[in-house]
Amino acid sequence: MTDDPSGTDPSTTDADPRVGAVDRASAVDSGTDASSRAFVPGHVTGFFSAHPDENPRSAGSRGAGIALAEGVEVSVVPADGDELPSRSGSTDPSPIDVRLNGEGADIEPVEAVLSALDATPRTAGVEVETDLPVGAGFGVSGAAALGTALAVNDAFACGRSENELVAVAHVAEVEAGTGLGDVVAQARGGIPIRIEPGAPGYGSLDGVPATGRIEYVSFGELSTAAVLSEDTAGLSAAGERALSTLRDDPTLSTLLASSRRFAREAGLLVPEVAEAIDLVDDAGGEAAMGMLGRTVIALGDGLSAAGYDPDVTRIHQAGARLL
Amino acid sequence: MTDDPSGTDPSTTDADPRVGAVDRASAVDSGTDASSRAFVPGHVTGFFSAHPDENPRSAGSRGAGIALAEGVEVSVVPADGDELPSRSGSTDPSPIDVRLNGEGADIEPVEAVLSALDATPRTAGVEVETDLPVGAGFGVSGAAALGTALAVNDAFACGRSENELVAVAHVAEVEAGTGLGDVVAQARGGIPIRIEPGAPGYGSLDGVPATGRIEYVSFGELSTAAVLSEDTAGLSAAGERALSTLRDDPTLSTLLASSRRFAREAGLLVPEVAEAIDLVDDAGGEAAMGMLGRTVIALGDGLSAAGYDPDVTRIHQAGARLL
Repeated sequence: MTDDPSGTDPSTTDADPRVGAVDRASAVDSGTDASSRAFVPGHVTGFFSAHPDENPRSAGSRGAGIALAEGVEVSVVPADGDELPSRSGSTDPSPIDVRLNGEGADIEPVEAVLSALDATPRTAGVEVETDLPVGAGFGVSGAAALGTALAVNDAFACGRSENELVAVAHVAEVEAGTGLGDVVAQARGGIPIRIEPGAPGYGSLDGVPATGRIEYVSFGELSTAAVLSEDTAGLSAAGERALSTLRDDPTLSTLLASSRRFAREAGLLVPEVAEAIDLVDDAGGEAAMGMLGRTVIALGDGLSAAGYDPDVTRIHQAGARLL
Repeated sequence: MTDDPSGTDPSTTDADPRVGAVDRASAVDSGTDASSRAFVPGHVTGFFSAHPDENPRSAGSRGAGIALAEGVEVSVVPADGDELPSRSGSTDPSPIDVRLNGEGADIEPVEAVLSALDATPRTAGVEVETDLPVGAGFGVSGAAALGTALAVNDAFACGRSENELVAVAHVAEVEAGTGLGDVVAQARGGIPIRIEPGAPGYGSLDGVPATGRIEYVSFGELSTAAVLSEDTAGLSAAGERALSTLRDDPTLSTLLASSRRFAREAGLLVPEVAEAIDLVDDAGGEAAMGMLGRTVIALGDGLSAAGYDPDVTRIHQAGARLL
């Protein structure tokens, strides 16, 4: 039994026999031989409690969410290839170009990862590509940071372990204020439950064992930094109650129900999302708000059945990985 | 970006809109609507140290290995479906049939998982299918136990979390004496490093961030129980040295090198495997012995280049999962 439903395992056409070499089968296919690539699933949080700490490895959140097959791909292309975007005439002190969906971008946690892995003195291009909405609670910044950590480690043979790379990305995200728990959840995949906050070695995770189709609609952004800069005591108390409920019954249905209650109790529910949740419920489905965004997610075809035109994805059972 | 190179995401044809229902798209495709299915990657250990303990959740091994895309699929079919093998006239006290590749089988850790999940009073069939050699160091028994835990939990709505299911399978494997570390490694996937022994909540894992093609040849079985019943002090000292070496340089090449040294120092190297490792080395490749079996694995096309006719698979970047 091979876990490859497509039957198109690229290993059978792998023309690179170099021992110890990173596998280049996929890169050869796409014509970018010199790049290292990583995929990181999107992640929508249903509920959370915030746990700031002076040590950014200990800081983080408790909570739960869903990793999505729709995610972020990061490619790192070293400069000795032909693929490096031209930098002639640039006065930018960093020799690394970061692009998001083809446009020059300043993604603070990505820059922090490059710095932490001592990659900035090297010359490379970092390409971040995603079909997910940015800033709407899908964990794009965390995914960009974690994908950059994996791909840079591979491209420049930094010699870090997986846990170390997850920690570097988690710290970058926490210090940038763009998220508290997406990175460790995206490293695990599936339906991660963040039992204790923090990077590997500090936090701990469990998961809801389930799979299935997910639909989502995003009505726009909600600032993570703005919410987290307010008094989060009430929010966190609601998040801890939701976590306790889910740990007593680790199922998808209970995740959605406790997430709906959290959004109300934490005062985060926005009108468009509240209306969508009600309409999905009226149609016999189950939905919840994605934290932190003006985003609604539903199980199965819940949003379609309620008359929306949602994006469709699936629960992604695997964590972040090199391609 | 979607992590689905085949472009055949079954979610887009999912005809089951039931809210909270386990996704049945794959089952519908294969015509077995009532079954719950799980895939667990194979796992080859390169080196290990044994850590027995009176508490089977604390017992386990340190070490490292490689999760393989070739693995084990477990299907659980409740009796109210048509698919249950007929048991009329049977005097077997267990109402659950366990089959391995279509033949009735007595897999002790699978029976233990069924008992731990209180599944034995229910009527069902458990089908375990694999193309991997059995008893040759590919973790088939651990995969069967973990896949059974995931599929039974899903089929009978047992309400256990992922960590609990991994713990149930780990305990079943440890108590059966069929393995010490495969289950936790197979739950993680990739190239797991077992830093501390034991089930989730007791042990801890890291990983080597790498991917690529793997070849293997198996010359037959080596009894895990027989090796583990001997004095393992020398073996474990060699395993601890190898772990320290790998943690200093968590790369594929160092995993293979420290595994070769472990096999020699632990006195486990068998002649066919030693010869294959040498021939792969002569051809410019890298190979190591799979513990515990008369098995050799190589990176890339190492065994082909050395004149063998190996099985071909890949490093499997994901852990065990429901299908």
